[in-house]
Amino acid sequence: MIDEEKVIYLDNNATTRVAPEAVQAMRPYFTEYYGNASSIYRFGGRLAKVVEEGRAKVAGFLGADPSEVIFTSCGTEGDSSAILSAVNVMPNRRKIVISTVEHPAVLNLGKELERKGYRVSRIPVDSFGRLDLERAKAMIDEDTAIVSVMWANNETGNIYPVAQLGEMAHSAGALFHTDAVQAAGKIPFHLHDLPMIDMLSVSGHKFHSPKGIGALYVRRGVHFHPFVVGGHQERGRRAGTENVPYIVGMGVAAELALAHLNEENTRVKALRDDLQNRLLAAIPDVRINGDVEHRLPNTTNISFEYIEGESILMHMDLYGICASSGSACTTGSLEPSHVLRAMGVPYTAAHGAIRFSLSRYSKQEEIDKVVEVMPGIISKIRAISPYWNKK
Amino acid sequence: MIDEEKVIYLDNNATTRVAPEAVQAMRPYFTEYYGNASSIYRFGGRLAKVVEEGRAKVAGFLGADPSEVIFTSCGTEGDSSAILSAVNVMPNRRKIVISTVEHPAVLNLGKELERKGYRVSRIPVDSFGRLDLERAKAMIDEDTAIVSVMWANNETGNIYPVAQLGEMAHSAGALFHTDAVQAAGKIPFHLHDLPMIDMLSVSGHKFHSPKGIGALYVRRGVHFHPFVVGGHQERGRRAGTENVPYIVGMGVAAELALAHLNEENTRVKALRDDLQNRLLAAIPDVRINGDVEHRLPNTTNISFEYIEGESILMHMDLYGICASSGSACTTGSLEPSHVLRAMGVPYTAAHGAIRFSLSRYSKQEEIDKVVEVMPGIISKIRAISPYWNKK
Repeated sequence: MIDEEKVIYLDNNATTRVAPEAVQAMRPYFTEYYGNASSIYRFGGRLAKVVEEGRAKVAGFLGADPSEVIFTSCGTEGDSSAILSAVNVMPNRRKIVISTVEHPAVLNLGKELERKGYRVSRIPVDSFGRLDLERAKAMIDEDTAIVSVMWANNETGNIYPVAQLGEMAHSAGALFHTDAVQAAGKIPFHLHDLPMIDMLSVSGHKFHSPKGIGALYVRRGVHFHPFVVGGHQERGRRAGTENVPYIVGMGVAAELALAHLNEENTRVKALRDDLQNRLLAAIPDVRINGDVEHRLPNTTNISFEYIEGESILMHMDLYGICASSGSACTTGSLEPSHVLRAMGVPYTAAHGAIRFSLSRYSKQEEIDKVVEVMPGIISKIRAISPYWNKK
Repeated sequence: MIDEEKVIYLDNNATTRVAPEAVQAMRPYFTEYYGNASSIYRFGGRLAKVVEEGRAKVAGFLGADPSEVIFTSCGTEGDSSAILSAVNVMPNRRKIVISTVEHPAVLNLGKELERKGYRVSRIPVDSFGRLDLERAKAMIDEDTAIVSVMWANNETGNIYPVAQLGEMAHSAGALFHTDAVQAAGKIPFHLHDLPMIDMLSVSGHKFHSPKGIGALYVRRGVHFHPFVVGGHQERGRRAGTENVPYIVGMGVAAELALAHLNEENTRVKALRDDLQNRLLAAIPDVRINGDVEHRLPNTTNISFEYIEGESILMHMDLYGICASSGSACTTGSLEPSHVLRAMGVPYTAAHGAIRFSLSRYSKQEEIDKVVEVMPGIISKIRAISPYWNKK
């Protein structure tokens, strides 16, 4: 058994603790106010109001109008909804442009579209994970329905120039979507100031709301074709009975994320830098993966060369430290992450990559503990590594 | 303000109160055990186990194997997943067969498929809402990819002969799917005994688990093409981070629903009959919509002729009584329900239809209260109805 109180949770890009305020706010909507938000009686009607309050809070968080926010079941659904909407509303355009380092939600949708006869162009990255913008520009053409590039990468934390990409898309008459699942709550932005972003998806559980809810922003005036069709919910843009408790929880979490945005970029960032710098100083043959100049404030992806990430994680687990190798969404495979492969990170470094991702709940003493135990863990594993001994 | 304690909730086909046991079971998975079920460390790994426990409980409820259960975000998503999977895996078959009384999830997906060039045949119903099985048989042909007919109708409670329809589908080499959103927890069934059902969708919030989760049963051996693509979750059949708390809640709710299935068909059924019979005895010009011999035990759909359902509901609301006119999914429109229109219910009766749907939380004193106040409500509205005065 592990003691949850003592867990050092540095895997916030995978999922986050639900904010206690959000849990508290959701509670009555399970048992007391359980009606259907689409009902005519007051018992249900008050829920319609609660749903709109949640929507207004999420809209405030994104700098959008509430009418531009559609609740979804997750970030993946948002990504599919945006991209498939574009190919549906522009049937004469038979191509989409994405990047090689997208989340599997976008990458695998790309493969699905290829099977259906669409063309998919993938913008490559350099060894720092930076997009090749010249190549991007050449790829985006009159046949492109949509360009979809993530705002920030889940594995490296790299931040991409979405405004510039959005403008490139618009120049070719294409729509622009960004998967902002990792950016929301970590990078300040206001969508009303970013007219080149037509659609944007977020996932609640990356900013301390529960898993199983997300939102898709669709800029006013952008023609939208729904992905989940059926009832009239979400003004015909997403069918299915409204998940009232999670909408309430996500609203509260969005408000809190907005309120703590400065802290993410000051205190949390300083903790991340402290962790990274002390690990680099204490352990030899270590490298940072990603673009340290354009990176999320909470993330650092560090390769401990010549050893296996899974092995490192299991040793960290003995100390109650949670982090990640590659993306949690591809765990189960022993392949190195597609992101690090796209960056051309050498095999011996890609396998030993560990992503540390902090949150506003992270504390200095947790960082101190990680810095204390990591050198021993790495030495111990290297001592029995054939790669290390042959290097 | 209304006092939730005193609400008489007879709208359980729209949504249900979450079972307190389910709420209790979910609680720790928001704040204490918040990890990602796909993670390697124990803190996440225990969640993978919890997800599988939830799956086993839902499978037990359905009489299925856990490997046949895919978690979805709602019943609508399950319906779309099943039908679109069939048209994807059988690209040479360009037709689907549904009924005229399906939920909007299926009806509107049918319209969507028509726009994409598929043919959709809709099985008609008679004035009792019974399917025309001869017509169904004639419609299902070698071009049919899937037959999708609901197990029980949300508005009338009519139960449809899904085993027979499944056999018809199989005879033509088509798949068979049923939307069992209303049937699950009210009709006893065991999917292992029903090999003609290839896919079946349920929604948690119709059987006292939260809104925002559902399950799709895909019989072993049935080729499935995912609707939400992306990460490897649900063994590649439904991407998106697992909604651990709701999976836990749905598992507990499924166990309870199975345990209370007999009560639904005895005590709850008796309460429904009592409500219906006393209303029919006390109020003139009243008719039951549906097939009383093949009907869910918790539902009665009663037309109070010559008046408007919305008006009745608003008067009932003053007494804290919650029921429904038409489907909650189409509230907002003043059109009479598509189900009653398909049945050819006369205009003056269809408009005054009220659906009462009970649950295991319904009590005799609540029924007594409804029976006490309804005659006065109906008389009062009829007194000012131009249709009533002209009849």
